[in-house]
Amino acid sequence: MIPAPQPPGWKDQPARDRLLHTAHALFYRDGIRATGIDRVIAESGVTKVTFYRHFPSKNDLVCAYLEYRHTRWIAWFSAALLRHGGAHEDPGQRLAALPPALAEWLGRDDYRGCAFINGVTELGGTLPEVVEIARRHKRDMTDLLAALLPPAPAREPDAQALTLVVEGAIVRVQMGEPLKDVLAGVERLLRGIAAVQSC
Amino acid sequence: MIPAPQPPGWKDQPARDRLLHTAHALFYRDGIRATGIDRVIAESGVTKVTFYRHFPSKNDLVCAYLEYRHTRWIAWFSAALLRHGGAHEDPGQRLAALPPALAEWLGRDDYRGCAFINGVTELGGTLPEVVEIARRHKRDMTDLLAALLPPAPAREPDAQALTLVVEGAIVRVQMGEPLKDVLAGVERLLRGIAAVQSC
Repeated sequence: MIPAPQPPGWKDQPARDRLLHTAHALFYRDGIRATGIDRVIAESGVTKVTFYRHFPSKNDLVCAYLEYRHTRWIAWFSAALLRHGGAHEDPGQRLAALPPALAEWLGRDDYRGCAFINGVTELGGTLPEVVEIARRHKRDMTDLLAALLPPAPAREPDAQALTLVVEGAIVRVQMGEPLKDVLAGVERLLRGIAAVQSC
Repeated sequence: MIPAPQPPGWKDQPARDRLLHTAHALFYRDGIRATGIDRVIAESGVTKVTFYRHFPSKNDLVCAYLEYRHTRWIAWFSAALLRHGGAHEDPGQRLAALPPALAEWLGRDDYRGCAFINGVTELGGTLPEVVEIARRHKRDMTDLLAALLPPAPAREPDAQALTLVVEGAIVRVQMGEPLKDVLAGVERLLRGIAAVQSC
């Protein structure tokens, strides 16, 4: 078993942060069901008593992991879109920010899909909180996508369509499809959205 | 724990078929890691010896489950597309077969996403055979989608784009998005694909 990667100076962080960071690394990389509590505790370098003081059960840790991931991912996605022109005054230019922003994430060596899709797949049937956090996450993602689009009346339905495209790209890369083919598919669908808008 | 639904007359089927049917029902509904071998054996009404004669390990059963699902799903999808006009001589009419075909599946009470996406999420990191079967499944799905499109030069890239759309729809419904909103998004993206083709 490969240990979770830890950031510099992590041993000086508060116990809760160490637990959350370790859980994030292991749950995302190896899966939630495949990662036992004992392993998170051992790799965090805390005692069992400390762990249970912060997280009374594994389910509490799972929910905290998803909230932590949600905050970080939305902050990254928002910044990545801006970096690639997502606040441009021309909607065409704004939409063009999406493929390079996605590429930053989908091309990472440690990419293993969307933590929320994976979480629902693993636990959606037994832990309703996971579905609730995942839906909130996707709503926030859709809001960021909507801001790339021209104003009403097409904004809302096109934001739904854009969300479909992003989910498709996430899954295609996770299934092993080459990134460049997936990005070509995304660009083709974005051209289609723009073509329908201009009709 | 709710038992797996069994078809009429299942007790008269050969042991291997009973095991496969039960594994399919439980793995798809409850997840692969969440379903123990002992439960599959008990619900199939076979002995442990019989089980291990057919499947030396859980991994063998998992691969057999995915092959079984692959054959059934592709046969269903192919028939559903035909039923909704997927062999029409007009490519526009052929493409229009996709949303009602998808709706048949995504609207089922027992819908729980794509067994292959779920399988890769749960086991992709530890069981390479799962990734291999999943990729083969998706290639066959893409081939069926390609047949809805006009001939080259756009067929191949558009088939990739269509696959993205289908994956997106699969995940959106699994995440709890209303089916009608997802289908509206699919239809919007299909109009875009047609609009880009006619440019």
